Amino acid sequence: MKFALSVLFFGVFMVAAHSIQAAEPTVSEATSECLECHTIVHPGIVESWQKSRHAKITPKQGMSVEGLARKVSSKTVPDVLQDTVVGCAECHALRPDAHADTFDHNGHDIHVVVSPNDCAVCHSTEAGQYEKNIMSHAYTNLNANPLFGKLEARIPGRAKLTDGKIAFEPPGDATRAESCYYCHGTKLKVAGSEVRDTELAGEMEFPIIEGWPNQGVGRVNLDGSRGSCSACHTRHTFAIEMARKPHTCKECHVGPDVPAFKVYSASKHGNIFSAMNKSWDFNAVPWTIGQDFTAPTCATCHVSLLVNTDGDVISERTHQMNNRLPWRIFGLVYATPHPLSPDTTIIRNKDGQPLPASLDGEFASEYLIDEKEMNKRRQAMQAACLNCHGSSWVNGQWKRFENTIRETNSDILTATIMMKDIWEKGLADFTINPFDEAIEKKWTDVWQLYANTTRFASAMGGGGDYGVYAGGRYQLTQALLEINEWRTVREKLNGASK
Amino acid sequence: MKFALSVLFFGVFMVAAHSIQAAEPTVSEATSECLECHTIVHPGIVESWQKSRHAKITPKQGMSVEGLARKVSSKTVPDVLQDTVVGCAECHALRPDAHADTFDHNGHDIHVVVSPNDCAVCHSTEAGQYEKNIMSHAYTNLNANPLFGKLEARIPGRAKLTDGKIAFEPPGDATRAESCYYCHGTKLKVAGSEVRDTELAGEMEFPIIEGWPNQGVGRVNLDGSRGSCSACHTRHTFAIEMARKPHTCKECHVGPDVPAFKVYSASKHGNIFSAMNKSWDFNAVPWTIGQDFTAPTCATCHVSLLVNTDGDVISERTHQMNNRLPWRIFGLVYATPHPLSPDTTIIRNKDGQPLPASLDGEFASEYLIDEKEMNKRRQAMQAACLNCHGSSWVNGQWKRFENTIRETNSDILTATIMMKDIWEKGLADFTINPFDEAIEKKWTDVWQLYANTTRFASAMGGGGDYGVYAGGRYQLTQALLEINEWRTVREKLNGASK
Amino acid sequence: MKFALSVLFFGVFMVAAHSIQAAEPTVSEATSECLECHTIVHPGIVESWQKSRHAKITPKQGMSVEGLARKVSSKTVPDVLQDTVVGCAECHALRPDAHADTFDHNGHDIHVVVSPNDCAVCHSTEAGQYEKNIMSHAYTNLNANPLFGKLEARIPGRAKLTDGKIAFEPPGDATRAESCYYCHGTKLKVAGSEVRDTELAGEMEFPIIEGWPNQGVGRVNLDGSRGSCSACHTRHTFAIEMARKPHTCKECHVGPDVPAFKVYSASKHGNIFSAMNKSWDFNAVPWTIGQDFTAPTCATCHVSLLVNTDGDVISERTHQMNNRLPWRIFGLVYATPHPLSPDTTIIRNKDGQPLPASLDGEFASEYLIDEKEMNKRRQAMQAACLNCHGSSWVNGQWKRFENTIRETNSDILTATIMMKDIWEKGLADFTINPFDEAIEKKWTDVWQLYANTTRFASAMGGGGDYGVYAGGRYQLTQALLEINEWRTVREKLNGASK
Repeated sequence: MKFALSVLFFGVFMVAAHSIQAAEPTVSEATSECLECHTIVHPGIVESWQKSRHAKITPKQGMSVEGLARKVSSKTVPDVLQDTVVGCAECHALRPDAHADTFDHNGHDIHVVVSPNDCAVCHSTEAGQYEKNIMSHAYTNLNANPLFGKLEARIPGRAKLTDGKIAFEPPGDATRAESCYYCHGTKLKVAGSEVRDTELAGEMEFPIIEGWPNQGVGRVNLDGSRGSCSACHTRHTFAIEMARKPHTCKECHVGPDVPAFKVYSASKHGNIFSAMNKSWDFNAVPWTIGQDFTAPTCATCHVSLLVNTDGDVISERTHQMNNRLPWRIFGLVYATPHPLSPDTTIIRNKDGQPLPASLDGEFASEYLIDEKEMNKRRQAMQAACLNCHGSSWVNGQWKRFENTIRETNSDILTATIMMKDIWEKGLADFTINPFDEAIEKKWTDVWQLYANTTRFASAMGGGGDYGVYAGGRYQLTQALLEINEWRTVREKLNGASK
Repeated sequence: MKFALSVLFFGVFMVAAHSIQAAEPTVSEATSECLECHTIVHPGIVESWQKSRHAKITPKQGMSVEGLARKVSSKTVPDVLQDTVVGCAECHALRPDAHADTFDHNGHDIHVVVSPNDCAVCHSTEAGQYEKNIMSHAYTNLNANPLFGKLEARIPGRAKLTDGKIAFEPPGDATRAESCYYCHGTKLKVAGSEVRDTELAGEMEFPIIEGWPNQGVGRVNLDGSRGSCSACHTRHTFAIEMARKPHTCKECHVGPDVPAFKVYSASKHGNIFSAMNKSWDFNAVPWTIGQDFTAPTCATCHVSLLVNTDGDVISERTHQMNNRLPWRIFGLVYATPHPLSPDTTIIRNKDGQPLPASLDGEFASEYLIDEKEMNKRRQAMQAACLNCHGSSWVNGQWKRFENTIRETNSDILTATIMMKDIWEKGLADFTINPFDEAIEKKWTDVWQLYANTTRFASAMGGGGDYGVYAGGRYQLTQALLEINEWRTVREKLNGASK
Repeated sequence: MKFALSVLFFGVFMVAAHSIQAAEPTVSEATSECLECHTIVHPGIVESWQKSRHAKITPKQGMSVEGLARKVSSKTVPDVLQDTVVGCAECHALRPDAHADTFDHNGHDIHVVVSPNDCAVCHSTEAGQYEKNIMSHAYTNLNANPLFGKLEARIPGRAKLTDGKIAFEPPGDATRAESCYYCHGTKLKVAGSEVRDTELAGEMEFPIIEGWPNQGVGRVNLDGSRGSCSACHTRHTFAIEMARKPHTCKECHVGPDVPAFKVYSASKHGNIFSAMNKSWDFNAVPWTIGQDFTAPTCATCHVSLLVNTDGDVISERTHQMNNRLPWRIFGLVYATPHPLSPDTTIIRNKDGQPLPASLDGEFASEYLIDEKEMNKRRQAMQAACLNCHGSSWVNGQWKRFENTIRETNSDILTATIMMKDIWEKGLADFTINPFDEAIEKKWTDVWQLYANTTRFASAMGGGGDYGVYAGGRYQLTQALLEINEWRTVREKLNGASK
């Protein structure tokens, strides 16, 4: 059995080789202490972390990588962190003075909620980009916009039937946290502390955190920072593979208001992904078009650092995510050029409303990017397309997309003209809340569901059914007809009942 | 080419080793006879079976496994079955006297439909648990509930237009079998026999079985037992891998009335599954949290035997499936604590209706589990959560879930109060059928579609769009507005036309 | 390290063996020229092609395969193509005189759009079958049917609000190309040429092609042929694996009008695919039931060459795709036997309308296949089913399917009788456009969305929720109730306002 022995020897040899390559991961003393208990009480977390790159590589090793493959973007990392892998304590005991939820836990200053500012210690470039991402302001942009507050009251709000009428009160915190703010992010707040009986250490004191748990993209953290890196880089493996796959984006981009995942998965690109991705390399950095993958995922077009087979950079990595996007196709009420600032609460249309366009469709241009910037972003997006498609293909597709933006905006104007008539005739009330009557909801259907779905279908290369029967133009034009029919019948009925 | 020879030798050696390990699978004489023909006429079935554990292991081998890894739960298995693998004859010729469809087939007493009582010969614990599963009563609970019969008439029933009105007659058997009873299960009945010309043996006689084919979870079988193990353990591989993946549950839990799969696949857990499951071990028994998988599937939370990395049992295996569920969030009309008995036809609310709550929302508590049992089930569920989440996370999530149950129940009450007014004013008729008019269907939308979707989104950790725009609160509150508008307009119209 | 050397040697040996098998792929001189630049400007395309069988095998090698494994169906292939792999020039410079978009490109006559007639040089049988496929006529069948033109105007058409009424104008070309014609295919037309500045060669002239890009199944090409093989055989890998996976079909068969993919993925077959396909062989030709796969995909039932484990042919390969389909379940307005000719513009019902049935449900039988052909197609379909299901299963399932066709057609008749009354009473207008009013759209919902969804659920073996709550019978019967309610209220209202 000489051969069998060889196999055995070869196995041992490979383990050894692997160990050398990974350079004996060193876990800090503090993290070792954490692991002592948490391996027992939270084995799932510990197992996930052990599968992570964080558990295998020290920041110093990460910083020794030169060029495009480098993942630690910070030029300097505190010495104390450099020589151990990134474990429990390295994140949850980082910057203790900055976090309102820091508490004494077995002699360590621990905080529950790790924030982008913690991650920024090693990943400063990405954290800086993310601050410019409109998603980082998703809590405030919704919560501090009085008009959106009225919409929020109508949707997850508390419906009260009084004197034969339904009125809406704002939703409570628990409801908010699992409806709009599940994706937008909650505002966290320490509301005291409590003593809990623990399995291994008896009674221990922990902070009470309002708004917790939450991993929304615009979460307002206990150090004042915004966002949650684990929204996309799922705890505690933080695998780039997962962030690059479209299911991560699906968590918040699947409903009829923003059906990116559904459209993608029915597109040619999504088909190629579904059928072939098992042989792709989702961990390569940089990500080589054609070699590592043969069709884009969400991350490819919106986030990732892409190179061609010659190693030339096609797209720079971005966590701002809209710097390849000239248009904001999610209509409020109309599709517009992207806002200049991620803080959209400052926007006022010509009528003083906090919207990027007036209700008659005029853009609030001073708050939006200009044509030059739009062109720059279009080119940044198209740079990736052109690796697999000729210019006439890409230009033809883009013309259709901009045609669809114009046409859906035109349909929204038609709906809004009818609504203005309805409001002016007193058939519905605009002032108290323009969203809280049945006919007003039909109007929001037009711009928030059907126009958005139609545009997403267009943006991703055609989209087939999603542009027509699956919540697209079929439903859009029907809603126009129904609004008009309602208007006619109501006028008639009001006349008849006088 | 010494090396090449080694490879060849190694290959032979491995085949031999494999054979020794699997101990020369012995196929019974009866099954060999089956295979002679059926390998030719039904090669797909035979190939599937050959991939199964049943084709490789004898019951005796299965019974020799000690501890948590044991799959044969019966303490005794008839001697005649112990030493051959589980093939065609072992199941389809088992307990011939018990099955009404037993017929002579080439000298063997064969029955077409294998039932849970057949499976129970080796898997008695699971079969016993399943009898307590409300799913095993899914046929009777629907078919023998007179109120649900009225709902069934309205949905798949036969619509007849007479004198300008649409009335509904109960659906025929063919329609029933592929609408409600596709999932609930049909009632099988032998209706005689027929002679068919067969490819290999000329004319042969077979039983005619009404309600066949069907694999619904509450199928009433020809031995009087209830359910179909192959609903989840798909024939003829019966792979635990398949039962543990969420696509099995999707077969019946995907529509807006019970959108578990859709919500799951948009949840953080579903994202992790979609992106990473290719490296999970779906065959390990017991199933180790963190090691074999890094996020739960449906089976993880509701069925599987789970252990932590120390091998401690976190969750006992259950085929009752609701013993980790305090609440029944599928509203009839309201979400309530789970019924005490799997037979829900015995339930009467305070008004004598066969529903777990009255139409004004009062629970029929004597038929439902009490708070003590609810707490026990909550803890059984949370035991799994706590392996990857801290207490404050789990408790915070649970509070939101119970808030959502209260709030959706409150919205259903609002809808029902308006409907009562509508019924009392004679704008619609309650007595003949409370489900068969357009406005009544809007009311069923509220509790059967939108409230359910909102609760499923909450139950699975937030659910993003499914709690808001994708059939959740956005549609729920709109339905309230539309019911109220209908009520107002109809009263006006009735007044005007007098 | 004798063993390590052996491994090295073995590696070299395998590469050599592989090279011998693949016989040194020879790239033609013309293709080499293409690759010189396009490897730089379109690396994604080149990488995809390099993964293809086209890049590895010459037609001569393909033609040397005998029997069922043969993929080159043409008996003769021009000598000039036989000894090089199928690269850029082999397709894009083929038959230059036939293509209106042929242009001089660095001394070569190149056309942008490769057509089925190009592919037919090697794959003549498949191209010939595809000409008989109703899909190849998808452009004309929609575009040249005046009634469908009215439907198209209502859906993606331009809505204009004039004098309080909404009227629809036909959609523009850009909208058409990304709504109906995205799947149906556009009509391509050369509209001149343009000079573009290119990265590597400065200014170059290219044809301007209206309707480009498009890969719809009925695309009218610049050589007059119909269809686009890359609709399913995605460029430039053209992998049979991708065409055989259901995501390809999903590109056009996912919306509520034709929800094949959604129904499939919730079916038992789809569950098996989702859970187990990672271990299937999607490249084997012929495709062996049970061995290469254990449940059908779309291609299995509708396209592929299937054999059983004995190598007997179960189903012949077909690109006509409806020769295993007796019924056309996509209702226009009713489900009918399949049309005789792929050109459906010739069909006239008894009332002279271009529909396969009259509005009262009578089939236009002279344009449809007869019962004999229907039986032949049913048997061709069932031949595959019977490999994994007994006769009673298959027959039982089929009876339900035909029951569902009858019942949904009956429901459509009920809806249409009410609409006729509405049209006759002048509550809506039939003549100008029977699809452009709100109530008319509810009628199209019945036959185009809910009846279709119900039938697809039935056709694929039950379909659970899609036959009931997920756009099936629940919505179908509700639409009947709503149409009737609308009719009653409108009559009342008209009376009251007189």
